[in-house]
Amino acid sequence: LKYRLIPVILSGGSGTRLWPLSTPEKPKQFHALASERSLIQETLARMSATADVHVGAPIVISSMRNAALVRAQLSEAGAACQLILEPFGRNTAAAAVFAALSAQAADPEALVLLMPADHRIGDGFSETVAGAAGVARDRIVVFGVKPSRPETGYGYIEVGASLAGAASEVARFTEKPNLATAEAYVAGGRHLWNAGIFLFSPAVLLAEMERHAPEVLRAARATLAASKGADDALYLDPAAFAECPSISLDYAVMEKTDRAAIVPLESDWADLGSWGEIWRLSAKDDAGNVVRGDALVIDSSGSLVWSETQAVGVIGVSELVVVQTKEALLILPRSRTEEVKQLVEQLAARAAKSDADSGGKT
Amino acid sequence: LKYRLIPVILSGGSGTRLWPLSTPEKPKQFHALASERSLIQETLARMSATADVHVGAPIVISSMRNAALVRAQLSEAGAACQLILEPFGRNTAAAAVFAALSAQAADPEALVLLMPADHRIGDGFSETVAGAAGVARDRIVVFGVKPSRPETGYGYIEVGASLAGAASEVARFTEKPNLATAEAYVAGGRHLWNAGIFLFSPAVLLAEMERHAPEVLRAARATLAASKGADDALYLDPAAFAECPSISLDYAVMEKTDRAAIVPLESDWADLGSWGEIWRLSAKDDAGNVVRGDALVIDSSGSLVWSETQAVGVIGVSELVVVQTKEALLILPRSRTEEVKQLVEQLAARAAKSDADSGGKT
Repeated sequence: LKYRLIPVILSGGSGTRLWPLSTPEKPKQFHALASERSLIQETLARMSATADVHVGAPIVISSMRNAALVRAQLSEAGAACQLILEPFGRNTAAAAVFAALSAQAADPEALVLLMPADHRIGDGFSETVAGAAGVARDRIVVFGVKPSRPETGYGYIEVGASLAGAASEVARFTEKPNLATAEAYVAGGRHLWNAGIFLFSPAVLLAEMERHAPEVLRAARATLAASKGADDALYLDPAAFAECPSISLDYAVMEKTDRAAIVPLESDWADLGSWGEIWRLSAKDDAGNVVRGDALVIDSSGSLVWSETQAVGVIGVSELVVVQTKEALLILPRSRTEEVKQLVEQLAARAAKSDADSGGKT
Repeated sequence: LKYRLIPVILSGGSGTRLWPLSTPEKPKQFHALASERSLIQETLARMSATADVHVGAPIVISSMRNAALVRAQLSEAGAACQLILEPFGRNTAAAAVFAALSAQAADPEALVLLMPADHRIGDGFSETVAGAAGVARDRIVVFGVKPSRPETGYGYIEVGASLAGAASEVARFTEKPNLATAEAYVAGGRHLWNAGIFLFSPAVLLAEMERHAPEVLRAARATLAASKGADDALYLDPAAFAECPSISLDYAVMEKTDRAAIVPLESDWADLGSWGEIWRLSAKDDAGNVVRGDALVIDSSGSLVWSETQAVGVIGVSELVVVQTKEALLILPRSRTEEVKQLVEQLAARAAKSDADSGGKT
């Protein structure tokens, strides 16, 4: 069964929790966190043509701010892509509509594989996708990951009745449960993490969007109609795009539709969402330290020391995260790396206040 | 009793334990650590003319490497000084000879007040020095500080029989005692810290040097004879200076002479020798943190966060020292700041090895 597929990569995120490495100027998907290639380059390489599948030119949805970076990294990866450039973020529902309409225009027969640009996925991904292609003719497939720990920062999907092959109906979505609930989910074995990766036929996606979130579909269509293409890229019209509700594909469609299906992703999967996660997934020295860059780490354990620039000398710390870039320095316990987002907000508020107080940068 | 005095400031140290702020290019005495002025500028301002004393032009002994920095900071302080520039360090005995001979040439009647450039001293210093001037006609006076804690990194002086005024004979020098000994000294009340500040008549110093360390006197005289003066500075001849034994004034003379005297320094005194000490002496926020520069310190206590350059975000640390400069970053517990010197040595060794391995900077 040969099928046709167009990968659509969602690269609009800013990855605040990986500050100061990840910044609005260069969000995490453009950094090499898990290999020699950046995360977006890894994502591009994930789907390659096999006997089973014809892979069309990928579509990348990114922010205008990062346009030059996207082009440079795609070019380095040797990928000819179509770009859709957003003037600001509007979450995934509108992006899914852009993906469906653009893919349909390029190849009416193709399925869309919608993937975030910032995940790390091990071997076997193509096989899982190929196995889901049949179900994806009629349903919107979401891929789920077997939970390895009671993570409270993820969404969980309860698996329902079996469909063809590895696919099942979706019984229920639960976003960010509390710890007790997450522990019950992990113990129960009927829940998977929502990987945020989708496989669908454009026609099915558009039909379900029309049914459950018509205002998103209408605003997204109007945005495309008002937008200008140039070279390899479509520049979304800001005024029209601002009318799109900022809502996720999960909330807008997946939690409501009866045409959802879930397929377990058998590959290793990680979202590389925090420094704690980066530490967990990286190679460590004998004392459990992850060291990147010009750093001398003495008599320390379980720590992440990441320097993009300067020489770093560390003595006698335990389970500490230290990240240094040209712009800033972050230091906090490994157990609290989820709090980076709040720290960045406070720093921004302080900088704004300082600017206001002094009438300029001090 | 009006007396004449020439301050001689020893500014040759490299202050390794305050790395990365203090570097060979800009050692700690050139940094503003305790006030708006640098430590050497504070030292220059310490002795001012009063009814009791005529203060001659100061002499500053520093390293050639820092010549431009010394000139800039002296000029900023409005001080007309004579400079003696060393091509490398040779400890304090030779420097004391240079001080005695240079002062003698400038004013045969003057006493020499020999002071390290990197101490912090509170009010009352001039009065203590004036009170010691009589004794210093015939003896080499060393000033002692009442110990406030059993510090094992300092030298201790046991006070002997009383002489005139506050002065006493020196019973014994003990360099860097172990903790039990230091505790006994503090409890006993007969020991003072050796502040490394001396008041002497050049003739007495030279006579005692001749008697107890004639090789130092000979080599230092030969160095002066071989050295060239230019503008405001005397550039010590490297070949001749290399012949000077590298020995402290304490070892060379003070521990042997029967013409030593000790005078207690009643002022606040600190040597600002480590980041732990800087923390101890600095103003703190409610949680006991010392914060310098563009740093946001959240939910942390008892820490020193010092940034010369970048924005720093710190969450949830306790008794940690973080120092960041343009060149490097240091992180270690406050209790271990004495170990910075070894860290710097390891970093230097590693950099040398890396250069050797790669045939250049990688």
